[in-house]
Amino acid sequence: MLETETSIIVSEKSLTRFCAEVLTRLRVLPEQADAIASNLVDADLQGIASHGVVRLPIYAERLNAAVVNAQPNVRIIRERPTAAVLDGDNGMGQWVGMRAMELAIRKSRGQACAFVSVRNSNHFGAAGYYAQMAVAHDMIGFSFTIGGINHMTPWGGTEGMLGNNPFAIAFPAGEERPVILDMACSVAARGKIIVAAKDDSPIPDDWAVGPDGEATTDPIEALKGFMLPIGGPKGYSLTLAIGLLSTMLSGAAFGTEVTNLYDDLERPQNIGHLFGVLPVKCFESLEIYKRRMDKAIREIRGVRRRAGVERIYLPGEREQLLAEEYRRSGIPIHKAVLSELVELGNKFGVVLSASSSQV
Amino acid sequence: MLETETSIIVSEKSLTRFCAEVLTRLRVLPEQADAIASNLVDADLQGIASHGVVRLPIYAERLNAAVVNAQPNVRIIRERPTAAVLDGDNGMGQWVGMRAMELAIRKSRGQACAFVSVRNSNHFGAAGYYAQMAVAHDMIGFSFTIGGINHMTPWGGTEGMLGNNPFAIAFPAGEERPVILDMACSVAARGKIIVAAKDDSPIPDDWAVGPDGEATTDPIEALKGFMLPIGGPKGYSLTLAIGLLSTMLSGAAFGTEVTNLYDDLERPQNIGHLFGVLPVKCFESLEIYKRRMDKAIREIRGVRRRAGVERIYLPGEREQLLAEEYRRSGIPIHKAVLSELVELGNKFGVVLSASSSQV
Repeated sequence: MLETETSIIVSEKSLTRFCAEVLTRLRVLPEQADAIASNLVDADLQGIASHGVVRLPIYAERLNAAVVNAQPNVRIIRERPTAAVLDGDNGMGQWVGMRAMELAIRKSRGQACAFVSVRNSNHFGAAGYYAQMAVAHDMIGFSFTIGGINHMTPWGGTEGMLGNNPFAIAFPAGEERPVILDMACSVAARGKIIVAAKDDSPIPDDWAVGPDGEATTDPIEALKGFMLPIGGPKGYSLTLAIGLLSTMLSGAAFGTEVTNLYDDLERPQNIGHLFGVLPVKCFESLEIYKRRMDKAIREIRGVRRRAGVERIYLPGEREQLLAEEYRRSGIPIHKAVLSELVELGNKFGVVLSASSSQV
Repeated sequence: MLETETSIIVSEKSLTRFCAEVLTRLRVLPEQADAIASNLVDADLQGIASHGVVRLPIYAERLNAAVVNAQPNVRIIRERPTAAVLDGDNGMGQWVGMRAMELAIRKSRGQACAFVSVRNSNHFGAAGYYAQMAVAHDMIGFSFTIGGINHMTPWGGTEGMLGNNPFAIAFPAGEERPVILDMACSVAARGKIIVAAKDDSPIPDDWAVGPDGEATTDPIEALKGFMLPIGGPKGYSLTLAIGLLSTMLSGAAFGTEVTNLYDDLERPQNIGHLFGVLPVKCFESLEIYKRRMDKAIREIRGVRRRAGVERIYLPGEREQLLAEEYRRSGIPIHKAVLSELVELGNKFGVVLSASSSQV
């Protein structure tokens, strides 16, 4: 492990192995533990630290409390030629999500648009992971989920009834990297408010409202209140729509039915997702599509830039570039996160080892 | 016609008949003219004046210049069991859009998710119109289009390469009104900047950037520059994704290929759309879905409200309430818009009549 001021560099391999071993100690089957670990580390590789290994401690706590099922029997409970509903049997969201997206791809057979809705799942990490699974099959992929905490209130309201719901769309390209939109609906990540609260520094007034629904620059008030959505009522509508897509087609929890990922270790969350694929060749010659995507990407990257801007990025491009770098040189993990992981490892007799050949 | 300070009340029937007659004078076939007129007036009924009859003059100008085809041969150019590509033959976007959404609904047969992509279309008005067509069939409807003007620049750029692309998602409900998300990706509507420029008043600094890509409060600079997307890079990614969905699956224009709706009366726009439907019963019992939607809607409407907020609205609810009112009492049309319409009518010998029984 290499050390910087705030981070320690860990190889992808070490980190993945560590996560997988912790998960197997919690009774997750090896194949599933490996897949879930890769999914988590993939987020860290892309610099999406908020959805990576930082979540392992809460996942472990939930598995340990048996409020998440370590050995789920994921099964199809309703099926049509190009649609299905998957019951995740309260398994880890990553495992359930990957099964569901694979099912959508399989049902499509490259011949049809296919969608799979999911119930009885859990927090699935980064939405983009699932959408991008479609790319290798020359399909546009969609991924929607309801968030595991009601951090938002309807526009004009003062009650947490909506998650900061994320969604992702992934587009295959030709020679260029795929374009991957992956976003939640808040102006800022809640983690930034937590940091501001620790630092006792004010936050911009468009990040959050206090419990009374009024905009606030006080991070403590903000944490008691609600995250503000992008574009005001637009972001409210968007997070609501993503929530409905993720839950109404499967019987997953919505609104008052949603329990808190961190605070409630007794009731399963019944998280819902929706995945979908549009195979390019249902609509367009793959060759023409790829050529046009490359042209579009290059045009966007090539526009004149504002003073001080070094490069125009396509959605997901910065993350893919970072992943290429971190795969070679190792992933910087924040020291505080690493301490938590080491502590977690100690509990289960799992060591987070430096792999000198990889670092 | 009843008069207020800024608006004149016109009945739905008079306004629709007027639009249809103008369109038929421009060689649009009666059936198509009626459908297009209803589509336009539907936007005004919902208070979405920016996408209603205010557009008739530019549509008329384009039809008159034969840069839009008054009598298109709309045809399917590629077909799969649950997908198709429609060529709009450069017809009016409303007509082409309605045909495409009908095709998606028909292909679905209530049994499958179906998507239809469109090329060689034109500006189609309000995206929500098409999405809501699915609702009567107990399907969730999607509608995406590329905008007809590149009012946005990639994040960090200073060149118009992206439209302020709109999309809509419509959800059927049970006893409650359908939930209809319909939004474009800019913080503010460009029309508001035009008004500020006329009034010589500053605009908020998050609405637009000048030609140099720097935020501006000067509406004149803003009109020379670019609209800012909601959530900064999030809205940039979103408008890009909507643009790609609307064009890459059909061969429609994107980026530098996009010509200007208002300024270019020589080249057809080759506007692209994407429509899709997810039949509820592919995934969930219709009865359970509707009961849960009603519950979700009522929970959201019933949350505690911020001081001064009289009512919490669901997406599209305010618009549907307004339409119910305006259908009874007539539609207020801005006097400036009405003058333009009267002038347009004079050109073609069509009178915009008050219908006293309706007003």
